[in-house]
Amino acid sequence: MKKKAVVLLSGGLDSTTTLAIAIDKGYACCAITFRYGQRHETELECARKIAAHFGVRDHVIATIDSRAFGGSALTDDIDVPKNRDESEMSDGIPVTYVPARNTIFLSYALAMAESLDIRDIFIGVNAIDYSGYPDCRPEYIAAFQNMANLATKAGVEGDAFTIHTPLIDLTKVEIIKRGLELGVDYAMTCTCYDPDTEGRACGRCDACLLRLQGFAQNGIKDPVAYR
Amino acid sequence: MKKKAVVLLSGGLDSTTTLAIAIDKGYACCAITFRYGQRHETELECARKIAAHFGVRDHVIATIDSRAFGGSALTDDIDVPKNRDESEMSDGIPVTYVPARNTIFLSYALAMAESLDIRDIFIGVNAIDYSGYPDCRPEYIAAFQNMANLATKAGVEGDAFTIHTPLIDLTKVEIIKRGLELGVDYAMTCTCYDPDTEGRACGRCDACLLRLQGFAQNGIKDPVAYR
Repeated sequence: MKKKAVVLLSGGLDSTTTLAIAIDKGYACCAITFRYGQRHETELECARKIAAHFGVRDHVIATIDSRAFGGSALTDDIDVPKNRDESEMSDGIPVTYVPARNTIFLSYALAMAESLDIRDIFIGVNAIDYSGYPDCRPEYIAAFQNMANLATKAGVEGDAFTIHTPLIDLTKVEIIKRGLELGVDYAMTCTCYDPDTEGRACGRCDACLLRLQGFAQNGIKDPVAYR
Repeated sequence: MKKKAVVLLSGGLDSTTTLAIAIDKGYACCAITFRYGQRHETELECARKIAAHFGVRDHVIATIDSRAFGGSALTDDIDVPKNRDESEMSDGIPVTYVPARNTIFLSYALAMAESLDIRDIFIGVNAIDYSGYPDCRPEYIAAFQNMANLATKAGVEGDAFTIHTPLIDLTKVEIIKRGLELGVDYAMTCTCYDPDTEGRACGRCDACLLRLQGFAQNGIKDPVAYR
C-alpha cells in the first residue's frame, strides 16, 4: 500500500509544486484547502481544479471562522500594497500577515491526518522569498512538529508526525524550475493577492512580482493572465 | 488600563473556574467558545450565560469545520462509555479523545489574541484528573507556547504570548474548592459528555463521575440536574 500524506493546497504556485513533489515522492495525497475570508474565491476554484487534475483522493475545503482573525490586508479592507518593481517590495512583516494563519491551517491538517491515520503533512512554506512571514521559517515548523507530537494520541504513542517543507530553502526561481521538471501546468495556479473579477492577476503586489521574477529568470513566460 | 486576556470557555466546570481565576487576577477577559460538531448545544448555551454573567467583553463562538476531525465519541456516533463507578473509568487515552482539538482551539485563541493586541491566554486544562488526553499536559502547553512565539508577529518582535493553565496541577476537588472560594455558581456549568434533551447530565460518563466525586469530597451537593 502506498504511504499517504495530507497536503495543504491553497491553489497557489508553491502549494501546487508541493503537491507535485509529494506525489513524485510516492505519496498518495489527500489535500486540505481553507476558506478564511479571503477577498476572492478564485484561489478556491484553482485549488479544486488542481486537486482534480492530480487525482487527490480526499479534498476537504474547510471554512475557518474569520472572526478569529483581524488586521490583515488579505482579509480586511486594508489595501494590498502595489509596487512599481521589486525594489519597492516590503521589508519586515508585511500588512498581508494574517495572525496565526499557518498555525490554524497546520492544526486542521494535523487533525485531518490523525483521523485518517496519516503521519505525513506537506506544506509549501518558503523561508527565502517568504515575504517576511514568521510562520514560514524552519524554526517555526520544527516547533510546530514538536508540539504536534506532544498533542496527539499518535505522537504520544511514538508514531510521530512529520511536517514536510520541500520548498523551505528554495528561491522562487528554483521552485518554478522544480515544478516545470515535474510537469506542473502553472496556468492552473493562482498567486495574486488582489485578482480582478475575472481572476486576472494584478502584476504589482508582492506575490505577483516574486512570481513574475521567478518565471523570467527561468526564461519562461508566466502562463496566467494579467490585467 | 486593565490587562486583557482571552479565555477558552467551553461552558464546563473547568473553563468557568479558569475564567473566574483570570478575572480575580485582574484581567479584563474576552472569551472564545467552539462549536465543533458536539452532539449537543447545551454546552454553548451554558457558555453564553456564563460569559454574560461574568461580564466578558468580547465573546466569540467560533464554528470549527468538523470534517477535519473524526474517530471520537464526542463528535461521532460511537457511544460515550458509561461506568457504574470510578473504578470503571478508562485508563490511557479514552474514546472521547478528539484529534488535535486543543491545538485547533489554542490556535484560534492565539489568532484572536494577536488581532486584539492581547498577550495572555487562559485555558482550563488539567493534568491530574485529565482523563488521559495528551493535549492537557504541561509539556504540551509549553510546546504550544514556544511554537506560538515563533509563529506570530508579536512573538517574533519579543512581545511574547503566555498560555496560562491555572488548573493544570489541581485535582477536581481542588478546582471546585477554588471556584467556590471565588463565588462561582456551578449550577450554570455543563460537564456531561451525554446530556439528555433537557440538558440533564447522565451521571455515569467519565466527566460526570469526576465532577460528582469533586463535589462530594468538598462536602457539597452538585447543583446541576441529573436524570
